[in-house]
Amino acid sequence: MKGRFITLEGIEGAGKSTVAAFIERTLQAAAVEVVRTREPGGTPLAERVRHLVLEPGTEELSALSETLLMFAARAVHVANLIRPALARGAWVVCDRFTDATHAYQGAGRGVPPALIDELAQAVHADLRIDCTLWLDLPVPEGLARARSRSAVRDRFESETLAFHERVRAGYQALAAREPRRIHRLNAAAPLATVEREVDAVVQQLLRDRAP
Amino acid sequence: MKGRFITLEGIEGAGKSTVAAFIERTLQAAAVEVVRTREPGGTPLAERVRHLVLEPGTEELSALSETLLMFAARAVHVANLIRPALARGAWVVCDRFTDATHAYQGAGRGVPPALIDELAQAVHADLRIDCTLWLDLPVPEGLARARSRSAVRDRFESETLAFHERVRAGYQALAAREPRRIHRLNAAAPLATVEREVDAVVQQLLRDRAP
Repeated sequence: MKGRFITLEGIEGAGKSTVAAFIERTLQAAAVEVVRTREPGGTPLAERVRHLVLEPGTEELSALSETLLMFAARAVHVANLIRPALARGAWVVCDRFTDATHAYQGAGRGVPPALIDELAQAVHADLRIDCTLWLDLPVPEGLARARSRSAVRDRFESETLAFHERVRAGYQALAAREPRRIHRLNAAAPLATVEREVDAVVQQLLRDRAP
Repeated sequence: MKGRFITLEGIEGAGKSTVAAFIERTLQAAAVEVVRTREPGGTPLAERVRHLVLEPGTEELSALSETLLMFAARAVHVANLIRPALARGAWVVCDRFTDATHAYQGAGRGVPPALIDELAQAVHADLRIDCTLWLDLPVPEGLARARSRSAVRDRFESETLAFHERVRAGYQALAAREPRRIHRLNAAAPLATVEREVDAVVQQLLRDRAP
């Protein structure tokens, strides 16, 4: 893969979209082709699966079904957008990826990590995430931000505080396990501070490129 | 589980719906509650996944994505319809189940059987299929029947003859592996003959019930 794969992670309201836009501008200034995308979703088919998963509905969606839908959407997204972009040398900036499945469906809903790992292996064994930025902030702050901007809460936004605390703890565990890949950023800091830290990480990635 | 779980398998045009209706009448005559359902689908959410999988679209759907969508729909179907029905003592008659994933996605599209087995284990390890009726007939005959009745071909109906031959061979392999569960019926025979054979199987299941 000639491109680089950067993922953004964090709970609702952590500021992932703002940071993604900042990374896109930074990379464009370095004349790098950028593909900004998100999960679940990123292609028309995968966005339809996103809709199924997120919309508040009347029918129960088990944690296992949710996990399988996430990976079905991911398989489409990886095959039809991420892999072709990386192959032609673009840098992909993706709002959430498999870490989110570990945090939300694993830590949040109790799906066994081994099953998530097996699905990840089946769907993207050949894909390396070059860098993950984890935007961490206290749950009440994140939820307050998220809820202030959306009129209708999706299936995750309407979850309990305890659920989101488990998700945050899930991210903490992932970051502890893979400290070289996952950079924790204090998302409660002023935006200028966050962007300075993000810029340092991105500039390092740019320097690390094969000449 | 107090009820019985009967699945119908076979290629397009094998006559599964006709046989399902016959089984339903037979069981109702024996005062058994029957739930007739189908895969992919069977509940509102799972039917939406069905639509995603079957409709002819412009975006490529890989064999792996297709498999994950099938099991996501199956997880919803099992949790929200099949398991509750069996628990209350109903007999569930289901048009296609995991054998179809082995035949279509496995034998037909090359998804590794081990992955399908793992997903089956995750989604319905606790579920026993009491009886599978495999309606077998030559592929050209099945396809001719299926295509004569539908104006628009779905993603499977529009597959090649070679694909459907692999699917049929997949069913043959499954039936050879599990001869006690899977009953092969000659679906090219006159309907009265098929129904007589189905009736014999259903009557045996009724006799086998715990008193």
